[in-house]
Parts: sequence; structure tokens; C-alpha cells
Amino acid sequence: MSGWIAVAGLGPGDERLVTDEVRAALAEATDVVGYIPYVARVAPREGLTLHPSDNRVELDRAGHALDMAGEGKRVVIVSSGDPGVFAMASALFEALEERPDAQAYDIRILPGITAMLAAASRLGAPLGHDFCAINLSDNLKPWELVEHRLRLAAQAGFAMAFYNPRSKSRPHQFARALEILREEAGPETLISFARAVTTPEEALNTVTLGEATPEMADMRTVVIVGNRDTRRVGRFVYTPRSAR
Amino acid sequence: MSGWIAVAGLGPGDERLVTDEVRAALAEATDVVGYIPYVARVAPREGLTLHPSDNRVELDRAGHALDMAGEGKRVVIVSSGDPGVFAMASALFEALEERPDAQAYDIRILPGITAMLAAASRLGAPLGHDFCAINLSDNLKPWELVEHRLRLAAQAGFAMAFYNPRSKSRPHQFARALEILREEAGPETLISFARAVTTPEEALNTVTLGEATPEMADMRTVVIVGNRDTRRVGRFVYTPRSAR
Repeated sequence: MSGWIAVAGLGPGDERLVTDEVRAALAEATDVVGYIPYVARVAPREGLTLHPSDNRVELDRAGHALDMAGEGKRVVIVSSGDPGVFAMASALFEALEERPDAQAYDIRILPGITAMLAAASRLGAPLGHDFCAINLSDNLKPWELVEHRLRLAAQAGFAMAFYNPRSKSRPHQFARALEILREEAGPETLISFARAVTTPEEALNTVTLGEATPEMADMRTVVIVGNRDTRRVGRFVYTPRSAR
Repeated sequence: MSGWIAVAGLGPGDERLVTDEVRAALAEATDVVGYIPYVARVAPREGLTLHPSDNRVELDRAGHALDMAGEGKRVVIVSSGDPGVFAMASALFEALEERPDAQAYDIRILPGITAMLAAASRLGAPLGHDFCAINLSDNLKPWELVEHRLRLAAQAGFAMAFYNPRSKSRPHQFARALEILREEAGPETLISFARAVTTPEEALNTVTLGEATPEMADMRTVVIVGNRDTRRVGRFVYTPRSAR
């Protein structure tokens, strides 16, 4: 069997942040699967079939990729950012658990620039000390667990990056997250909203937790909360390397 | 003033993981500063002066970069991985706090593939759910704070990535970290040691916390600890997207 699967991270949006490793996989692929806006970033060419699919069908998409690899196709599953951070790599392995026949397939995960690190680079260095990454969506875990993690992360003194901070279907949850953070970390802590980083729609906004409102985030925003040492210098926000 | 500073991430080692954005900055630079092994990754050329320096002189290096940018030079500060993750970006902003004259300089942070995400991609997807990144070195924070963070991170159910897990000067601390993790997360939790990822010396090793020994890590190793759902599928290690 000469088929393979590569789960590739396209980075946050700027084409100069796509790695050569990912470009090489796309150049050799026969098929590309992924969420519609990510597949739209792949240039069509002869011999390449694009299979865009909707959000929330990650397991079906992964199964489809395994089927095609089994037929000898060279399949790239595209993710934005890094495929291992709240993206398609785990979904592929979940599908693989149900498919022992496919576990010997040629499967590679190709890393990319994940949104929180692109956002951090545009803001300065807010993740320059110990930090955590939390997916605020409760699609795949109970909201109570999110609240628990926010409290412990603040008590640990972690800077924090939030993916999927807010959606129309659960507008109140991000308001609740801000409440918890104000309680645990204090209203003076800096919070940054980084929307559509490295794209023409990029927008950056840093305020204190006391000033933050839920409307500052949407589903294209990565939110970064500092620790108690995080501060501004000039136009930048950064977290010092040291802690007391 | 036409000088500038770019703090650039060279990624974990494989040249195919260096971004075009970083390559473009290096192509325009007049001066490159950084830790000796990172500067050694930059090809010499006419018109480019390389300034390799030792470890633990980050603030001096940052000050030197600011001086040169002030003289109109185009300076790249090279980091391995991503400059915003336990690397030179925060050191530059620390230096910038002492230099109000330099705060209007043209300064950019150019993201890269950080070691934990490269390691995760080689292992499978161990950071596919909420996770944290902790620098285990006590150079810049008290060891007690590291222990506190390990306990809270385990109680929060985070997967964890550790940078600088072990050095000759503090061999007992990583043993203590393993002890705490066994207590808090249980001996069946998976732990992966990923050494020199994406280089010819790459070595991957996944065991349980019960089986782990301090000697499995050195300063070139990134350590990744799973959460209670992290498991093997085929030759891979992954953390499911969902949690109870």
C-alpha cells in the first residue's frame, strides 16, 4: 500500500507561516480533506481532489481519510494552526481506535504555528512564563470542568490562552469565565483579545480583567490572560521569565 | 532610523520547519545574535555579522540587539522553537523596560514551531485536550512554585509539557517532579520523553509514570505527561478531545 495520511497545520492564516514540510505534503497529495475554510486555503491543481466538509464532522472526515489511504491515496487532512492543538490530530486517532486494520498505515502529523503562539507574537510575549491552553467550548466536556480548570490555572499562576472563547449558542459562558478570572486573578490582570491574527482582519485589544466584556471575543478570537506579573512595555504586553 | 529587531523562532531543528517569514528576516539582517548553537544554524554570508553568545546572558544579548538597532542595524535575535515560549522574546521586553529610548523601535516577534508541539506531532497527539507548559528549571523561580504548579495542573486534569526538565546542576528535582506526578495523577498515566525532535538524534520513549526514571530526560528532552484519558493507539500516543 502506497497510500498515506498527513495531518497538516496551515498556521493562523499568513501564507508565510506555512512550513515547507506542509507545502511538500500538499504538493504530493491526491486528496485534501478538512473544514471548508481551511480547504479553501489549498490551491486547486490537476490530480488533486478537494473534499471540504462542515464543522463538527471531525470523526466522519477522519474515517473518510482512512478509507482513502486504504485505497492507496495520499491524503492531507488540513487544520488551521497546529493539528495537535484542539484540531484534527486527536480526531484522527479517535477514528483509528475503531479501525485496527488502519493502525499500520503511514500516518504523519505535521506541526504548524498554533493560534495562541501567533497571537502572543503579535502582542509581545504574554506567554513567556508557564502557561496553559484551554478550549472554552463545552461541546466535548462539561462546563463545570472548564470552570474548575480556570480556577486552578489562576491559583497556579499560569498565563492562559483560550481557544473557542465564545459562540452564539452559549453567549453567557464567556461572561462567567471572566467573572471567575476576576475573582481568582484580580481585576488588574491583563487580558488580550487577538482576532484573526496574521490575516488582513487582524485586531488586537488589551485591557484589564476589570474592563473586559464578553463582546470583546468571538469565535475568531484567541484570548490570552496574563499572570500577576504580566505588564505593558511600550506598545507590547509581556510576561517576565521570572516569578516570585 | 531604519534599524529593526526581529526575534525569530528557528523551530525545533528540521530546516523544513523554519517559516518563510523567519527566512526573509534572516535574508535582510545585518546582524544575528543568539545562543551559540542557534546562531550556528544561520548560514554565514557577506554583509551578515554573527554574534554567538553563551547561555544565561539573555539580558546582555537583548541590550546588545537594542544598541545595534539604535545604530540603524537590522538585527535578528534567534531562538530555537518559538521565541515567545521560554525563549528570547520576554528577555528582550525585560531589557526594553530599562530602555525607554528604545520602546519606539521597530520590533517584531516571529513565531516558530515550539519544541512541545513538534514533540507532540512526533508522538501522535498527546496535547489534544487542555494542557499546560511548565519550565522545570528553577533558575528564575523558586522550586516550591514548580511543585505547586505540578500539583494544581494534575488536579485540573491538564496534559503537561515540561521544558528544561533536568540538568546536571539539579539532578534530584526531576525525580521529585515524577514523585509528585505519581501521587497526583497516578502511576498508570503515560509520560513521553522526546529528545532532539526532528533532528538526526531524535529519540522518543513513552512509559507510565510508574515506570519513569529521572535518567530518561536530559536538557535536550521535552517531557509530555498525559491526562487520565491519554492512551496509545497503534504506535501513537494521544489525548482524546473529550473529557468527562
